Amino acid sequence: MRILLVGATGLLGTAVHEVLVERKHDVVTVARTGGDLQYDVTDPAQVADLYRTVGQVDAVASAAGHVPFKPFGELTIADYQAGVTGKVLSQVALVREGLAHVTESFTLITGVLAREPIVTGAAAALANGAVEAFVRAAAIEIAPKRVNAVSPTVFTEALDVYGDYFPGMKPVPLADVAQAYVRSIEGRQTGQVYVP
Amino acid sequence: MRILLVGATGLLGTAVHEVLVERKHDVVTVARTGGDLQYDVTDPAQVADLYRTVGQVDAVASAAGHVPFKPFGELTIADYQAGVTGKVLSQVALVREGLAHVTESFTLITGVLAREPIVTGAAAALANGAVEAFVRAAAIEIAPKRVNAVSPTVFTEALDVYGDYFPGMKPVPLADVAQAYVRSIEGRQTGQVYVP
Repeated sequence: MRILLVGATGLLGTAVHEVLVERKHDVVTVARTGGDLQYDVTDPAQVADLYRTVGQVDAVASAAGHVPFKPFGELTIADYQAGVTGKVLSQVALVREGLAHVTESFTLITGVLAREPIVTGAAAALANGAVEAFVRAAAIEIAPKRVNAVSPTVFTEALDVYGDYFPGMKPVPLADVAQAYVRSIEGRQTGQVYVP
Repeated sequence: MRILLVGATGLLGTAVHEVLVERKHDVVTVARTGGDLQYDVTDPAQVADLYRTVGQVDAVASAAGHVPFKPFGELTIADYQAGVTGKVLSQVALVREGLAHVTESFTLITGVLAREPIVTGAAAALANGAVEAFVRAAAIEIAPKRVNAVSPTVFTEALDVYGDYFPGMKPVPLADVAQAYVRSIEGRQTGQVYVP
């Protein structure tokens, strides 16, 4: 399949890229800097531009989303809005603008904070909860095109940096998270939130 | 208890007001028009103003939230943003700005679309999913103050207007939804999503 991979140069995006290439897909990589194409998908106009440039693809995989982490008392409304812009509306735009260009499926990124909170994670939780509910809702209206989310906990490979924020929570290897993208892209389910 | 009821003049707010008065609470009602005080809580500055005017209360109950309903293909990014502003960030601001003024609890409104989609409901689903995940996350950081959400399906009393959007889904009487507010306010749980 021809797959557009957004957020392709991050820790997760790199792992997803690797497994998609292993599975013989033709991957077009997008990132703010680096990748085959440079776009900032938090700007809906750039998302539309991106699809015009890329043309038709079979699937879109998103590993892109930025949300501020701060103690609850320090999170401002602007911080929550930044999370919505950086992880929610950006991925909504990938689906919305992509309908005319994507033949099969969309796979979005969310995360464990949608269901299990951590200290400093209120804006991230809000963003993840929004993405997961959006996926369930969009699925019934875009069929037979499909949309799923991948909702990992902290990555094993990022434990040294973020582990203290996830006390006692079992990490997940990036390879397992990447397989959840494969499951979404090559499988036939829709409206699912895969927890790798 | 002294309770600030936001969105007090709508179908739900009126039902919540009635049951809170029956239970001998002292209720201060807020709405855009009508109610004891007129404020637009989608403007964070007005939320801060509202709390300065009201002073200390024991609990905040929110029945306020507006989200656009449109077929998926017609929902623009501006529509999703309107739902976030109208139902998510407004209620986040009620909690955030309220921490210095509210001694016990916050009860927010969300809805069934967070878990079960309907056609035209993608922006509403996104907003509800955001509110529910926010509640779970905020709860662990604002303790011993509490925050819960009430997540009803279509109201029995609104079936004639909205019933066609919820085919085969069992409606809930407003009186039961109002009791979920009582449960949140007079109970001791936090981080819960009550499905009346």
